[in-house]
Amino acid sequence: MNAAASRELLLNAFEMNTVGHLAHGLWRHPRDQSRRHNDIAYWQQLARTLEAGLFDGLFLADVTGVYDVYGGSEDAALRHAIQLPVHDPVPLIPAMAAVTKHLGFGVTVNLSHEQPHLFARRMSTLDHLSGGRLGWNIVTGFLESAARAAGAPRQAGHDDRYARGEDFMDAVYQLWEASWDDDAVRADVARGVYADPARVRRIRHEGPWYRVDALHLTEPSPQRTPVLYQAGASARGIDFAVRHAECIFLPNQGLAATAALVARLRAQLAAAGRAPQSVRILTSIEVIVAPTDVEAHEKVEDYARYAQPEAALAQFAAATGIDFSRYGPDEPIRAGRGEGIRSAHDAVAAGNDGEAWTVRRLLDGMRLGARFTPIVGSPARVADELLRWADTAGVDGFNLVRTVAPECFEDFARLVVPELQARGRFKRHYTEGTLREKLFGTGQACLPATHVGAAWRPSSAPSA
Amino acid sequence: MNAAASRELLLNAFEMNTVGHLAHGLWRHPRDQSRRHNDIAYWQQLARTLEAGLFDGLFLADVTGVYDVYGGSEDAALRHAIQLPVHDPVPLIPAMAAVTKHLGFGVTVNLSHEQPHLFARRMSTLDHLSGGRLGWNIVTGFLESAARAAGAPRQAGHDDRYARGEDFMDAVYQLWEASWDDDAVRADVARGVYADPARVRRIRHEGPWYRVDALHLTEPSPQRTPVLYQAGASARGIDFAVRHAECIFLPNQGLAATAALVARLRAQLAAAGRAPQSVRILTSIEVIVAPTDVEAHEKVEDYARYAQPEAALAQFAAATGIDFSRYGPDEPIRAGRGEGIRSAHDAVAAGNDGEAWTVRRLLDGMRLGARFTPIVGSPARVADELLRWADTAGVDGFNLVRTVAPECFEDFARLVVPELQARGRFKRHYTEGTLREKLFGTGQACLPATHVGAAWRPSSAPSA
Repeated sequence: MNAAASRELLLNAFEMNTVGHLAHGLWRHPRDQSRRHNDIAYWQQLARTLEAGLFDGLFLADVTGVYDVYGGSEDAALRHAIQLPVHDPVPLIPAMAAVTKHLGFGVTVNLSHEQPHLFARRMSTLDHLSGGRLGWNIVTGFLESAARAAGAPRQAGHDDRYARGEDFMDAVYQLWEASWDDDAVRADVARGVYADPARVRRIRHEGPWYRVDALHLTEPSPQRTPVLYQAGASARGIDFAVRHAECIFLPNQGLAATAALVARLRAQLAAAGRAPQSVRILTSIEVIVAPTDVEAHEKVEDYARYAQPEAALAQFAAATGIDFSRYGPDEPIRAGRGEGIRSAHDAVAAGNDGEAWTVRRLLDGMRLGARFTPIVGSPARVADELLRWADTAGVDGFNLVRTVAPECFEDFARLVVPELQARGRFKRHYTEGTLREKLFGTGQACLPATHVGAAWRPSSAPSA
Repeated sequence: MNAAASRELLLNAFEMNTVGHLAHGLWRHPRDQSRRHNDIAYWQQLARTLEAGLFDGLFLADVTGVYDVYGGSEDAALRHAIQLPVHDPVPLIPAMAAVTKHLGFGVTVNLSHEQPHLFARRMSTLDHLSGGRLGWNIVTGFLESAARAAGAPRQAGHDDRYARGEDFMDAVYQLWEASWDDDAVRADVARGVYADPARVRRIRHEGPWYRVDALHLTEPSPQRTPVLYQAGASARGIDFAVRHAECIFLPNQGLAATAALVARLRAQLAAAGRAPQSVRILTSIEVIVAPTDVEAHEKVEDYARYAQPEAALAQFAAATGIDFSRYGPDEPIRAGRGEGIRSAHDAVAAGNDGEAWTVRRLLDGMRLGARFTPIVGSPARVADELLRWADTAGVDGFNLVRTVAPECFEDFARLVVPELQARGRFKRHYTEGTLREKLFGTGQACLPATHVGAAWRPSSAPSA
């Protein structure tokens, strides 16, 4: 059906430095270890599990505000650990990189709260320490509470945030791509020269939002610019992704809606002069797998006993801007059809619901503590479904949602990966090289010359 | 001579995520491994070495600008790797914490470029992941190049920076100390309650520089506020240290000047109502040790063959604001006596020189690539000197300067530590507990109630 059909699937574990990520209440399951998120050993063991299972990467979500729409306060978020507490994801990476060799790390950082010069240094440092395994999920943020936390009276407008994002990207591209030449570091012991000043240049960026007048403080890292992820699904967000993203992550919105969005993204990539298949598109997916279908459904029942659908509803309230606590169980929720929808992803999802929302219907769809329809079954059934998704919707792979952790990742590695391998749709070993080379091929350690970020390279832009 | 005289010495390794820290040129020594600063395994091995040697901590310096006074450009800094490249120190901590249990981590972060809410989260995350072993060296920065890198036309005035620092501290103290009660996290599986909303409160800070209206995003870490280091030696810097610091770090300025400064600090602490001995004062020190005095001096000669005194001069130019490249070798450097001295530390040092500087005299004092007079000799001689420093100057311990790494730390651990132990002046094992407990005693995991940061606790300030 499309060029992705015969490809090996890409696979990330979808995680967050928090107790409750997306499947709420499952921290209460006796085998769940999410409460160990402050324990380095937990993350290191997870990283080893993922690498043994040949996962391409660990995708770390983040949010810098709190969900405070439901009931008009953050009480529900605190009570149910709905991405609160939420700890910094960045410090997890060096600890996990130290015990792995191939696993990639895609980390979400909201650029709205970063200073380009020091952010670029932090990312370069991580790329160095991980041996070129860093990806950055570019986020501009949507939570009012995050804006207030940062001292702003309110969140910037949606389009303004993306315009600021463009300015930020221009600044960091220059730091990563243009400040140090490949041969700048000589480390010449005899002559006593570490770096050749003629091969290092100061970046002078004067944008509408950001000014930088500085050298990049780090020598070139294996990938220079980290692999760029983006997850916007609004019109402006798609423009941004089409311009910058090497991987696009789509929160799951059902097969049909995903297929339509993927087709639209590929078309817009082509219209922008980028090869449509050159960008990897992944969607989040929830999988409950067991040796047999029966056991898998038993596992769902077991998990469901600990899930908290009301917590999923509170998170969905923040995503849509609708305070569902103000509705009776069967009262039609009309606000959801028009304004008040804040998250671009969920706006798309809302538009695909066949009938009016009610609290009861929403909760019915949240049995596992998340607004997901999981794939449930034996390895063969799960593989069938994943490949149907890949081949029908044209996605290149998946961010596997945490349910009961870490067993959900262990189960997938143990049961589903061999099945996909048997069908020729999953790698049998890692290839060498940086994360970008693993995703796009040997020799592609850095941004391709056709990427917008590469245009800042001195050779591409002699006036820079 | 003072209360510190009979105490066990505190000992940190003084490091930086860079090729050339303070003893310039030694990266060229055949045994030096500083160029491995992008290799996680290097740092993990160093951490193991330090912990085996019972070091209290690893103190990580940082700078976010470049040294560009010498010759009017950053060329000398690049050529000699004078703290350039300089990579982010923070990501080193989780990797090293993962392979150690007791070693503390004091990390330098310039608050001028941080947003309080996310900085507080990052520090809390590190304190969690390290099991309460985090210290923060509070810096406000002095480099023009760092200000330009951050988009400011020029560096803020010295006093303004400290006033802004006070505002920043007020904000982060509230996030660390007042947002989550000790018993806020219930993790009550049966009731399905992770945190009790009644035990978590939003911080509303409106200062002249910073506004925060937010919950702290992390649950209470073992120490809440990291152990606070400060290194200011200007009048305003000392005021700041006397108010906030739990440990004060004094770059080495000779025994007499250090003794005078320590006495002044202790007096000011007393005047401010803090017990003078309650603050740990450390100074940097360079040690070259070998089994015998003769071998130690041979080692100095060996090191000196690789050192680059001209690089030390270029770094000193940035510290003083004097472009030494404009002076002949024997021309008296008069600018150094008055204005143009930018760094408070070096201003003090400059004031203690007996005679006028010349380039030749300065270079003579930089034989090992740094403006240090090293302690050289057998373990007994080194121990004698360290104890003379401690007991004459009243310092509690030392930040041991990197020369040829990691052998300088290995040598110290192998040769000097046992000698100090034999004299009853160095611990024979770590005590349990957080870094603060190790420094100040069991039960003192968090800031003492008398500390200015503790005043923000809800119990101390019911109106908060």
